[in-house]
Amino acid sequence: MSDLRVALLGCGTVGGGVARILLEQPERVATRSGRKIELKKIAVRDISKPRPDCIPASLITRNVAEIFADPTIDVVVELMGGTDIAREYVLQALMAGKHVVTANKALLAEHGVELFETARKHDRVIAFEASVAGGIPIVAAIAQSLTANQITAIQGILNGTSNFILTAMSEKGMSYSAALKEAQRLGYAEADPTLDVDGSDAAAKLCVLAQLAFGLNVTVKSIERFGISEMNSIDLKYAQELGYTVKLLAEAWLDGKDVAMHVAPVLLRNTDMLAQVRGAHNAIQIMGDVVGETLYQGAGAGEMPTASAVVADIIDLAVGRAQATFQAAKLWQPSGKGFRLRPSTRVRSRFYLRVLVADKPGMLAEVARSLADVGISISSVIQHEAVEEHQGDVVPLVIITHYAETGKFRTALEHINRLPGIAAPGVHFSMDD
Amino acid sequence: MSDLRVALLGCGTVGGGVARILLEQPERVATRSGRKIELKKIAVRDISKPRPDCIPASLITRNVAEIFADPTIDVVVELMGGTDIAREYVLQALMAGKHVVTANKALLAEHGVELFETARKHDRVIAFEASVAGGIPIVAAIAQSLTANQITAIQGILNGTSNFILTAMSEKGMSYSAALKEAQRLGYAEADPTLDVDGSDAAAKLCVLAQLAFGLNVTVKSIERFGISEMNSIDLKYAQELGYTVKLLAEAWLDGKDVAMHVAPVLLRNTDMLAQVRGAHNAIQIMGDVVGETLYQGAGAGEMPTASAVVADIIDLAVGRAQATFQAAKLWQPSGKGFRLRPSTRVRSRFYLRVLVADKPGMLAEVARSLADVGISISSVIQHEAVEEHQGDVVPLVIITHYAETGKFRTALEHINRLPGIAAPGVHFSMDD
Repeated sequence: MSDLRVALLGCGTVGGGVARILLEQPERVATRSGRKIELKKIAVRDISKPRPDCIPASLITRNVAEIFADPTIDVVVELMGGTDIAREYVLQALMAGKHVVTANKALLAEHGVELFETARKHDRVIAFEASVAGGIPIVAAIAQSLTANQITAIQGILNGTSNFILTAMSEKGMSYSAALKEAQRLGYAEADPTLDVDGSDAAAKLCVLAQLAFGLNVTVKSIERFGISEMNSIDLKYAQELGYTVKLLAEAWLDGKDVAMHVAPVLLRNTDMLAQVRGAHNAIQIMGDVVGETLYQGAGAGEMPTASAVVADIIDLAVGRAQATFQAAKLWQPSGKGFRLRPSTRVRSRFYLRVLVADKPGMLAEVARSLADVGISISSVIQHEAVEEHQGDVVPLVIITHYAETGKFRTALEHINRLPGIAAPGVHFSMDD
Repeated sequence: MSDLRVALLGCGTVGGGVARILLEQPERVATRSGRKIELKKIAVRDISKPRPDCIPASLITRNVAEIFADPTIDVVVELMGGTDIAREYVLQALMAGKHVVTANKALLAEHGVELFETARKHDRVIAFEASVAGGIPIVAAIAQSLTANQITAIQGILNGTSNFILTAMSEKGMSYSAALKEAQRLGYAEADPTLDVDGSDAAAKLCVLAQLAFGLNVTVKSIERFGISEMNSIDLKYAQELGYTVKLLAEAWLDGKDVAMHVAPVLLRNTDMLAQVRGAHNAIQIMGDVVGETLYQGAGAGEMPTASAVVADIIDLAVGRAQATFQAAKLWQPSGKGFRLRPSTRVRSRFYLRVLVADKPGMLAEVARSLADVGISISSVIQHEAVEEHQGDVVPLVIITHYAETGKFRTALEHINRLPGIAAPGVHFSMDD
């Protein structure tokens, strides 16, 4: 079979890793592909930047148009990031008759319909294993391996930075800011960690997974997101006391004809498989109506793990698997596939609520009354006699509710926050199960 | 596209589940396949046995030959188990021009080369996702998703029965026999649990994984196997004291040009992802030279989880993915792929050793000397003043070694077992890391 010729757009961390595999392991890649894979060009913005030694200078170009114009290039691998120029280039590549491999979840979440329609029109394929959870083959799991199932729930630890920080806070008793500094020192967090810790990064990945599992066209903006930057160690301690672990979860689950989705810190039972995922790892738990629960875990980011997924997509194109999957999966249809996104106020959950209340009779009764007024019943309560952090005339009150609609819980919370004797607005999290 | 017509050989637990999905979810299966999948015949031994209500009597036949002779049947799904008649039927199906889907790890481990050669000769495909770890897509992970990697190590909890028993022993302090009874009562263990608890079942699955990862042709008999039926709670307690959890692991790892393999109870650090896999679950940790560690976890057996994998293979055949993978992966080549099985005596490991010794001076020195004589050094020792189970004149001595060749360790152990003052032969396990 003829060689498969590949060009990269972008040669940062992941691009460097992909180039390294293709250039340093040509026999391995050819054996797995049944044909030679030739890395033909790498387009970069800054031609003077140093590159891995294995990359010959002759491969590097600043001229992207040259790649689209080269009829011998079969596959364009988009590793630039961003959603504007990346969108433009992916469209051009498809229109020029090239398959596209991308690791860009934000691009798919934002422009999936347009890109996939263009690919279908030009009989080309978009492959995107690397866009979610790095080297963990979660896209293949849903799009190929679990096809006998209707997926009913996805729960993912999709942001390694946040999981590293929460693990450090919870296991070492560190504050949020100390744990963030530690993550930055070790290279798990960027100088500006906003997109990681505010849930945006995980939300873009969740959009991709929700498309795969539910055919749902949804953008990051339409998903309710809560991050971890306001996380207080005291809530992690109360969670532990209750037998729970807090994880930043990206969740999507089926509720009738609706899909409920959010990214939020969630209290998981300690025995839950996801509760045991520590450090910078990613993990995704998938519930299927036939298979039950399956869990996928590994490095969710980084040069080589993500490159592993990109090269798997290239090999899938070489052997024809990517084409078969693209055609069968019919992703990012303009009309969606029949499921709707449930409005966030109507998403049901159990809730953890912590409020600082005046140390006087009747406060528990008033808080409980506010919940009862909207029909929410209480599952358990913690009120300790004294807590170091809050000596004097206020005490923390922790309440676990039964299942309730988010909107109703918020109505109750607004009421609670206005009660005389409430020292600070209530802190709340969703709880699993 | 034309319908894909399927026949099942066998209609036990898994066969019933497969029939249920194909008959009760025809639209789902057709949508994922891009064509209709028709269940045309189900061959059974005992035609009078009750079947799930969804199966029309007209599908059931005792005449297997009718299936092979029917030119409209595209796929034969072998779910009979066993290695003699199953081999015969799979060969006949391939020679009659049918693709084969099988869940039969023992068949592949025993006759893989012959079956795959026959499939290649007749331009047919054998798909076998269901043969290892039920609904966990581990075959696809290795054969498709991790193709950028040289797999360097596989560690699997591949037998749910054994893991259930070890979890119950370790978490509830149950004896082996009490835990086995509990497993039988809950349906996790069969009346005769031999193949589950002696490591044979896990070894057959490991043969399949070693073929996928290393191209190694190896049969169950050539793998060293230790089971859990001799497991004593006291060793689980010592393991806990040391920060370890005992799991029955099926392991294969690369050591130069050799692949070391065994099935054995192994001490894993409590923080290891596999140490946290509880109950009847299966889990497989794969180490790749590009991706690092990835873990796959879920139900490893049972009607519907295994049926999920079988139907995924049928859908893969319908969309053409299975054909692409079969051709590219080149499995069970008569010549193997360059790796050799390392003789078990030369496999290196750390060891846990517990011996009952006379409570007199010099015993530790003599045991340590026996290890030192073959060049094995000691990493740590536990010798308590008194242990309830062994009052009187003997005390247990627990020794953890550094890495050593299994053969040398056994030489030392033979010597230790013959020392005056040794009250019972030493109990030993491998340790991870």
